[in-house]
Amino acid sequence: MKLLEERIVADAIVGEGDVLKVGSFLNQNIDIDLLDACANEFYRLFKDEGITKVLTIEASGIAAATLTALKFGVPVAFAKKSATSNVVGAVYCAEAYSYTHKKNNNILLPCSYLTDSDKVLIIDDFLARGAALNAMITICEAAGAKVAGVGILVEKTYQGGGDAVRKKGIKLESLARVASLDVENGVTFAK
Amino acid sequence: MKLLEERIVADAIVGEGDVLKVGSFLNQNIDIDLLDACANEFYRLFKDEGITKVLTIEASGIAAATLTALKFGVPVAFAKKSATSNVVGAVYCAEAYSYTHKKNNNILLPCSYLTDSDKVLIIDDFLARGAALNAMITICEAAGAKVAGVGILVEKTYQGGGDAVRKKGIKLESLARVASLDVENGVTFAK
Repeated sequence: MKLLEERIVADAIVGEGDVLKVGSFLNQNIDIDLLDACANEFYRLFKDEGITKVLTIEASGIAAATLTALKFGVPVAFAKKSATSNVVGAVYCAEAYSYTHKKNNNILLPCSYLTDSDKVLIIDDFLARGAALNAMITICEAAGAKVAGVGILVEKTYQGGGDAVRKKGIKLESLARVASLDVENGVTFAK
Repeated sequence: MKLLEERIVADAIVGEGDVLKVGSFLNQNIDIDLLDACANEFYRLFKDEGITKVLTIEASGIAAATLTALKFGVPVAFAKKSATSNVVGAVYCAEAYSYTHKKNNNILLPCSYLTDSDKVLIIDDFLARGAALNAMITICEAAGAKVAGVGILVEKTYQGGGDAVRKKGIKLESLARVASLDVENGVTFAK
């Protein structure tokens, strides 16, 4: 999506160690008009898939997933990264390694929030190696729900997580596809 | 708000130890029409306050804050509960005790996400003793920003956090005001 790619060029910060910071407009501090345009684009891309549920993972996926769910008029659920007193009883659980936090997370979703008749649109802000995304797909499979689509704001195509999921036959669309990151030369997008 | 109170009566689970679970429709799994109606109500209540920014805290406040920001057409930011590689440089920091997680959290917001010209609407899902809310107010004060309002989905009025903030002269509105919780008799709302 041109609007998102242009904003990344203008305002994202490229750091050492393959770091792309979009916190000032897309993530921790959100330009609501930009994110709303992204949600509209997800609706356009997946509106024929019969979506009954939007699924994401806390915390930075929640804003995009919520606006997307509003467009579809379906519920949104988010998997949690730790067990709390609010997550008890029967839960789906899958392991995801977080490269940001440098540890394994068990992501958790109460079983009652997903059924075998759901057609799920998974939404997340970033996709690199795909650890969080694959954990969400595992949870959908455990529930017998169909992954009807995956919508990502920013994909690092060179890390391969997206293509691995596409090879499973899952429709995955990213609004900005980053082909390379360089502290001096900035961001290059995939064509 | 009658719609929210009725839904709490119908679907919330009251547990031992003053626990009110709304995860199935308001929090981890979200009825998007209900949350959108709540966001419209926040807009009605605060539309004359000149709001320039919506502020919340991860994770369960993000969905409500995002939909509310959409109504106002202003950016939304969320404070984080832990430092990650995405939160570096100058940050505002305030301490908040989490009764859910039973530990002290330092909540963090990069300084650049809040300015002394901002009129902030703080949004959160729950208000009990007010630890998270007071930490967000502290961050606004540190930034020199004005707390122009506080919007809460569910307030436990008997725990006093809300009234303590109202006494500071801050306009605080809760859409459901729980006066008592009882495993046998359920929820009673304040009049």
